Amino acid sequence: MPERDVLISEVGPRDGLQSIKRAMPTEAKIAWIRALAAAGLAEIEVGSFVSPKLLPQMADADAVVRGALAIGGFCVAALVPNLKGAERAIAAGAQKISLPVSASRLHSQSNINMTPEQAVAQVAAVVALRDGLPAGSRPEIEAGISTAFGCTMEGQVSEAWVIELASMLARAGADSVNLADTTGMGNPAQVKRLFKALRAELGPRAGAAHLHNTRGQGLANVVAALDAGVTTFDSSLGGLGGCPYAPGATGNIVTEDLVVLLESMGLRTGVDLDKLVAAREAVLVGLPGETLYGHVHEVGYPKGFVPAGKAAA
Amino acid sequence: MPERDVLISEVGPRDGLQSIKRAMPTEAKIAWIRALAAAGLAEIEVGSFVSPKLLPQMADADAVVRGALAIGGFCVAALVPNLKGAERAIAAGAQKISLPVSASRLHSQSNINMTPEQAVAQVAAVVALRDGLPAGSRPEIEAGISTAFGCTMEGQVSEAWVIELASMLARAGADSVNLADTTGMGNPAQVKRLFKALRAELGPRAGAAHLHNTRGQGLANVVAALDAGVTTFDSSLGGLGGCPYAPGATGNIVTEDLVVLLESMGLRTGVDLDKLVAAREAVLVGLPGETLYGHVHEVGYPKGFVPAGKAAA
Repeated sequence: MPERDVLISEVGPRDGLQSIKRAMPTEAKIAWIRALAAAGLAEIEVGSFVSPKLLPQMADADAVVRGALAIGGFCVAALVPNLKGAERAIAAGAQKISLPVSASRLHSQSNINMTPEQAVAQVAAVVALRDGLPAGSRPEIEAGISTAFGCTMEGQVSEAWVIELASMLARAGADSVNLADTTGMGNPAQVKRLFKALRAELGPRAGAAHLHNTRGQGLANVVAALDAGVTTFDSSLGGLGGCPYAPGATGNIVTEDLVVLLESMGLRTGVDLDKLVAAREAVLVGLPGETLYGHVHEVGYPKGFVPAGKAAA
Repeated sequence: MPERDVLISEVGPRDGLQSIKRAMPTEAKIAWIRALAAAGLAEIEVGSFVSPKLLPQMADADAVVRGALAIGGFCVAALVPNLKGAERAIAAGAQKISLPVSASRLHSQSNINMTPEQAVAQVAAVVALRDGLPAGSRPEIEAGISTAFGCTMEGQVSEAWVIELASMLARAGADSVNLADTTGMGNPAQVKRLFKALRAELGPRAGAAHLHNTRGQGLANVVAALDAGVTTFDSSLGGLGGCPYAPGATGNIVTEDLVVLLESMGLRTGVDLDKLVAAREAVLVGLPGETLYGHVHEVGYPKGFVPAGKAAA
């Protein structure tokens, strides 16, 4: 395994596909995940164990987790909204489970039909389920605080409440708590402040930054999060899924652009850029004509660019 | 005048138009500049005094400077490549003159047909010309180091040489020296390092950050430059002009997105966002069908967003 300064958690097969109405065939998903793994991504969120009635494009999450495990060499992560989803994810063999908990009460209700406190109780229930499993088969549990930087329904979200919620989630047994800029409303000053507070409150359980590029501030927020000591970032190949609020805007930050940013700053990601850019093709095989985003695939690398990983080698 | 933490120097009418082959009618340029000024931009680079044979779209720079002066209320800046251009700019009444000096020798030769040392001598000659003018009619002189973060011909550019060149320009009498990421090759670590070094070397003569968004890193580089104490940023309404190396990539960072970034971070720009976004229309009047970039005009402001300037008021 290559040495890494930053872990990139690829969320395209979950967050990207979740925003796209049409379904990608299971085999195409697995081929895409294989291409991502071949590029050196060490963690991939491969699907969501929500009700197939709500998100039919995720109905094959079990098969995708199994296919991903068969590829091997990376952490197979899945999103689950509740205990039932966790049971399915665990049965399929997911190695990491992410539970979304909204800081915004309105968003929480509309997204998972629970209050934030009920969502914390679900995390505790999933932790209890996990802790009852035989050693060696216990997935890591991550809680992700969505709308941590603002909500399209509520507007500003109290920073003190976000940190309190993070603390509740850690006490509920989550191995890590991440902060998600679900709505792309975060700004670098806020991102730095909140991740510093998260680290002060949770120590090593302070988790990833899940950033969106809705207002073009995604990579600016990455710089701020790095300043606050964040070492794990969620992102999506090609910014897949776009932004439901704006036709021209990406959703998640673009993995390719993120890798160039980090490697050019001297931070090793363990990712092979050429293979990563090539993996865009695998998305289009499964979703012909889909809009992908990003700059690097089009502009190329800076002349004389040496990735940090190769400079160190 | 509103109080400001950051000065935005709008360069669309110069850097934006320079990258577009067709010419914008003089009256349309002035109407656009009027809209920019009405939005509260305190400095606007309105044109370039290069040879009309090289850039026919800048042939009316004299008339545009005069039209801009007639609007009033902001600093009327112009780019000049040499002494002859400076004479024209001064005759027209430009209040600030920017001279580009390439750190890359190949770029310097191809861009202004001079070595960097010859370009420094031109700056000294322009300073002498300016100092001979009557008090009250002496424009500010800025030297801009282009390709400071990398060159598409030479690749990496020595950081020590960039700082040495900045020092030479200050000794030649430039009031300020800015660093330009002409090619969009800069990364946040480098931007922070170089602007810190510039400030250490030049003190108050350390100037603006002129950043491009070629690889989607423009606003990320702004965050890094802010960390290094930079308080003036060049940008272009709608990212006008694109990137000659990539059809889908903006050239200059987008003024609207920059203002939202800064104001949401609590930094006052003195710019009225609604009027700024409305000014995009004025560009399209003069250049029908031209591609403009940016996120904010499409996505809108974050819900509950209060610009720093209004929060303080």
